[in-house]
Amino acid sequence: MATENRNPEIRKDAVNNRLVILSPARSRRPSDIKSKSQSKPDSNPTQCPFCAGNEHQCAPEIFRFPEDSTSDWKVRVIENLYPALSRQLQVKSDNEEHRQANGSTGEVSLRGFGFHDVVIESPNHSVHLQDLSPAGIAVVLLAYKKRIEQLCAVESISYIQVFKNHGASAGASMSHSHSQILALPVIPTIASNRLNTMKEHHNQTGKCSLCNINTHKLLINESTHFISISPFASTFAFETWIIPRYHSSHYHQLDEDKAIDLGGILKLTLEKLSLQLNDPPYNLMIHTSPLHIVSSELPYTHWYIQIVPQLSTIGGFEMGTGCYINPVFPEDAAKILREVQLP
Amino acid sequence: MATENRNPEIRKDAVNNRLVILSPARSRRPSDIKSKSQSKPDSNPTQCPFCAGNEHQCAPEIFRFPEDSTSDWKVRVIENLYPALSRQLQVKSDNEEHRQANGSTGEVSLRGFGFHDVVIESPNHSVHLQDLSPAGIAVVLLAYKKRIEQLCAVESISYIQVFKNHGASAGASMSHSHSQILALPVIPTIASNRLNTMKEHHNQTGKCSLCNINTHKLLINESTHFISISPFASTFAFETWIIPRYHSSHYHQLDEDKAIDLGGILKLTLEKLSLQLNDPPYNLMIHTSPLHIVSSELPYTHWYIQIVPQLSTIGGFEMGTGCYINPVFPEDAAKILREVQLP
Ligand SMILES: Nc1ncnc2c1ncn2[C@@H]1O[C@H](COP(=O)(O)OP(=O)(O)O[C@H]2O[C@H](CO)[C@@H](O)[C@H](O)[C@H]2O)[C@@H](O)[C@H]1O
Ligand SMILES: Nc1ncnc2c1ncn2[C@@H]1O[C@H](COP(=O)(O)OP(=O)(O)O[C@H]2O[C@H](CO)[C@@H](O)[C@H](O)[C@H]2O)[C@@H](O)[C@H]1O
Repeated sequence: MATENRNPEIRKDAVNNRLVILSPARSRRPSDIKSKSQSKPDSNPTQCPFCAGNEHQCAPEIFRFPEDSTSDWKVRVIENLYPALSRQLQVKSDNEEHRQANGSTGEVSLRGFGFHDVVIESPNHSVHLQDLSPAGIAVVLLAYKKRIEQLCAVESISYIQVFKNHGASAGASMSHSHSQILALPVIPTIASNRLNTMKEHHNQTGKCSLCNINTHKLLINESTHFISISPFASTFAFETWIIPRYHSSHYHQLDEDKAIDLGGILKLTLEKLSLQLNDPPYNLMIHTSPLHIVSSELPYTHWYIQIVPQLSTIGGFEMGTGCYINPVFPEDAAKILREVQLP
Repeated sequence: MATENRNPEIRKDAVNNRLVILSPARSRRPSDIKSKSQSKPDSNPTQCPFCAGNEHQCAPEIFRFPEDSTSDWKVRVIENLYPALSRQLQVKSDNEEHRQANGSTGEVSLRGFGFHDVVIESPNHSVHLQDLSPAGIAVVLLAYKKRIEQLCAVESISYIQVFKNHGASAGASMSHSHSQILALPVIPTIASNRLNTMKEHHNQTGKCSLCNINTHKLLINESTHFISISPFASTFAFETWIIPRYHSSHYHQLDEDKAIDLGGILKLTLEKLSLQLNDPPYNLMIHTSPLHIVSSELPYTHWYIQIVPQLSTIGGFEMGTGCYINPVFPEDAAKILREVQLP
C-alpha cells in the first residue's frame, strides 16, 4: 500500500502559501477512510422553512429561479433570518464614523455592515445538490452569479464569500440543501494572502499559479472547461479543487454554458466523494477575487472551488499554528477518486 | 440584556491582525450558552496506556517528574506513538536534499522532520488538569519548559507548539489528561503573522502589544505575574488569554515561582469556564516566539496562553475566509467570567 512507503512531508503551494504536514502514520490506509457521521436528512420536513409551501416561514425573498415561477420554483435566494452582518447599518454611516481605530492599542473595529443571504437549492427536502442534474446544478450556480452581480453594485462591499455547509459536523444547522452568500466590507485574510501569493508567483515566473497548477499524479477528472484535482498542499484528507481551465479572475464571469459544464463536474465530484467516503459532511467554498481589483491584478487572479469533506476534528495544533496535519497524501487521494466507479 | 443593544462589529487587534465578526444575533444570550457535548471521561481506564501501571503500553519515555520517581510519578513526557513528524528523518539529511522546490509551479516540500511528544499530566485517569493544585499544575508547566529546552538544542528546530485537546469535539482521541508538544523545522503562519503584527505595532508606538493589551471591560482575573482577559478580537465565544504581566518573549523563560502563580490562574480560568459553560471541550495553546529570534525582536515578542472552549462547529465561511463569526462580544464574556462564583 502506497502509504507504507511514504515519510511525512511539509508542503506549501503557490496559491495559498499555507503550510501543511502530510503525515500518513496518523491514519488508516487512505482507501479505508470513511466518514463516521453521515449527513442524513432529518425526519421532520414539515417543520422545514426551506421546503416548498413553507415560504412564509422564511426571511424575505430576494429572487427566485425561474423568475416568474410560483409554487414550482427551482431555487430561491432569501435573506438570512439570523444574519452575521447587518444590511441596515450602512444607512447610519453618513452620520457616524464607520471605522474606529485605537492608536495606542492598535485595535480596529468596523461597524458590521454587510449582506448575508441563503440560497435554497431545491424546493424538495430530500434532494441534495448532487442529486440535481448538471443543468439543475447550473441553476444554483447562476443564482450565485446573479446575487453576486447585485451585491457588486454596493460600493462598500469588498469581497463576497459563497459557501455551503452539508451535514451537522460541517456546521449545517439546516439539513434542507442550501448554501450561503456573505458580502463583506473588508477583504478577508485568506483572500488577501492568496492574492499576495499569486502575485509573487506571477512576478517570478510570469504565470498564473492556477492556470499552471501541478496536475502530475493529482488530476481527478476534467471537463470541457474545468479540471478537478487533489491540491499539492491539501489541508484536509480528500480535499478537492475544481478549477476553470480558462483564466478568469471572478466567479461571476461564469456564463450559462460553462455553468452547465461546471454543474457536471461538480456533480461527479460530490458523487465520488459521497460514494468513497460514505456520504461525509462537507464544506464547499468558492474562492473568487476581491471585487475592486485593478487591471494589473487580472493576470494572476483566478477563481476556483474548494470542497473539504469533514472526516476528523481539528485540534489545538491546527488552531495554534494555522498548519494542518493531513494523514492522506493528495497523490493517494487523487488516485482513489480517479478510480471510483459510480453505479 | 447586553446583547440586545449590540450591533454586529468587525474587529482586529494588534497581536494577530485577524478579522473577526462579532454577531450577537447569531446566538442565545451569552449567559445561556452551554456546551452540548461534555468532556466526560470514558469508562474503561484499565485499557488506557497513559494510566500508572500501563507505562509499558506507551511509546518510549523522555523523562518524568519527579525524576527519580518509580510508580509514584506525577508527570511523564513520552514520545507520541503516531508522530505527525519524524525524529528519524534528520539522520538522512546529510545525504539527501531536505527541501525541494519546484520553480515552475512554485511548490515547496520539506521532509517531515520534527519531534512530537505527549505530556501525561497525571498518573490517574480521572484527574484533569484543573483538578490539580496550583503547584501540581506547575509541575506540568515546568515539564513543558524542560522539554522545550531540550528541543532548543536541535539546531534545525524553528518553532515549538505546546497544545492541549480536552474532550472529543476539541479533537482529543485520548480522554486521560494530557497535552502535546510539536517541534517544527519551520515557523508556522500564525506565529509569523503575530511576529509581523507586533513588530509593526512596536514600530508605530514603541510599545509591545501584549504589555499594553486592552483590559478595559475585558479583564477577567489577575495574579501576581499574570492577567486573564477576553481578547478584544476574540475568534470564539468565551476565548480567554492568560498573559504574563512582565515582558517575556519565550514561554521557557518561566521560573518555578511564576509557574506556581500561572498554575493558580490557569486552574481558576479552567474552573470558571467549566462551571459557566457546563464542562466544555477545549483547546489550550501556548503562543511563544520562534526559537532563533534576534535581539532586536525581543522588545515586541511576548508569549501568552490561549484557551478556546469548543461551543460550536465552524463552517464554510470560516474555512473560506479565515474570518470567524463569534456570537459573544468579549466584553460580555469577560463580565460573565469575572462574576462566576466557584463553590
Ligand atoms: N426561516 C429562515 N429564513 C431564513 N434563513 C433562515 C431561516 N432559518 C434558518 N435560517 C438560516 O439558514 C442558515 C443555514 O445555514 P447552515 O445550516 O449552513 O449553518 P449556519 O449558518 O447555521 O452556521 C454554520 O455556518 C456558519 C458560517 O460558516 C458558522 O459560523 C457556524 O458556526 C456554522 O454552524 C443559517 O445561517 C440560519 O440563520
Ligand atoms: N500508547 C501510546 N503511547 C504514546 N502516544 C500515544 C499512545 N496512544 C496514543 N498516543 C498519542 O496520544 C495522542 C493523544 O492526543 P489527542 O487526544 O490530544 O489528539 P490527537 O493527537 O489524536 O488528534 C487531535 O489533535 C491533532 C493535532 O491538533 C489533530 O490533527 C487531530 O485532528 C485531532 O483529533 C495522540 O496524538 C496519539 O498518537
